[in-house]
Amino acid sequence: MSLISSPLPSSVPVPAAALPTGQAEDPIERARAFRAAMAQVAAAVHVVTTDGPCGRAGFTASAVSSLSDAPPMLLVCLQKNSSAYAAVRGNGVLCVNTLSADQEDLSRLFGGKTPMAERFAGLACEAGASGSPLLPGVRARFDCHIEQVVSVATHDVLLCRVVAPQACAPAAGSLVYADRRYHGVGVGAA
Amino acid sequence: MSLISSPLPSSVPVPAAALPTGQAEDPIERARAFRAAMAQVAAAVHVVTTDGPCGRAGFTASAVSSLSDAPPMLLVCLQKNSSAYAAVRGNGVLCVNTLSADQEDLSRLFGGKTPMAERFAGLACEAGASGSPLLPGVRARFDCHIEQVVSVATHDVLLCRVVAPQACAPAAGSLVYADRRYHGVGVGAA
Repeated sequence: MSLISSPLPSSVPVPAAALPTGQAEDPIERARAFRAAMAQVAAAVHVVTTDGPCGRAGFTASAVSSLSDAPPMLLVCLQKNSSAYAAVRGNGVLCVNTLSADQEDLSRLFGGKTPMAERFAGLACEAGASGSPLLPGVRARFDCHIEQVVSVATHDVLLCRVVAPQACAPAAGSLVYADRRYHGVGVGAA
Repeated sequence: MSLISSPLPSSVPVPAAALPTGQAEDPIERARAFRAAMAQVAAAVHVVTTDGPCGRAGFTASAVSSLSDAPPMLLVCLQKNSSAYAAVRGNGVLCVNTLSADQEDLSRLFGGKTPMAERFAGLACEAGASGSPLLPGVRARFDCHIEQVVSVATHDVLLCRVVAPQACAPAAGSLVYADRRYHGVGVGAA
């Protein structure tokens, strides 16, 4: 079974391995076990924003990873049925805003059912070099152009070139999500 | 400038955007600024292990991300000049071992210059379904088959199917790296 919707010629051919004995459970049970294990993996909380011809949007994300520093690149995993999907893909730009320990409210605002326009109401956002909104009070910002998109099952992996990295508010500490709750890490640290 | 060594036909065509005014600094300065901003992004600490025909290896990693839960997939960013590269790519399997708050020593052991064979000496590792070593005392394990590999600049992005997720040792708390030091998150929490 290929899990990749569009096999990529640059990819390594990996034979479809038979599942090991005892591993071929119900897909629903397998997904539940995966979520339970992943809930124990601590992750920084980000709000990914975009703006441009296809509209302004933003969503809370933890599936973000550094990729390379020369050139500076990161990746963002974007669910294809996300309400921000069309705007992010259409604009081709995004900013990863890494939340500070005191920004749990922003995480909930951009991770819930609030209509897109209302999410930005009352936020004093400047536009980054890419045109994407820069959220105030964050720990770090990574303003990006999307260079390449790889479709994997229910998600797109967005491979992004960082055009403007910014370290800010270092004393505020980091907002981290682990064990299905928020934590402040390094709060008040220099 | 394309940052992708092998352009992928499934990718979205993204025009090579001109860098915004004031953004075209020296590449060395740009990489430094990126690392400074990324240092403020908290990340769980993992040891990625592999075993098989191309040998046993393991390395400390933070560039790991959840990807989808149905099917269960995650991704690992692997530097092409990593000492574990040949083994991971050759074996085609890996286990992401997510470290507990009290496993800072393991992070240093697998992230330093210790020869590969010595890294596993004294560790009571069982073999996972994939054949990869399962490290003891960790928070979670994700035993994986590598499904697809995307080459991006200095790194490979390994798109992995999780064949055996395991949540374990929930009370131990999570090891997190932020602001260039280790933190324990949720230590002692149920």
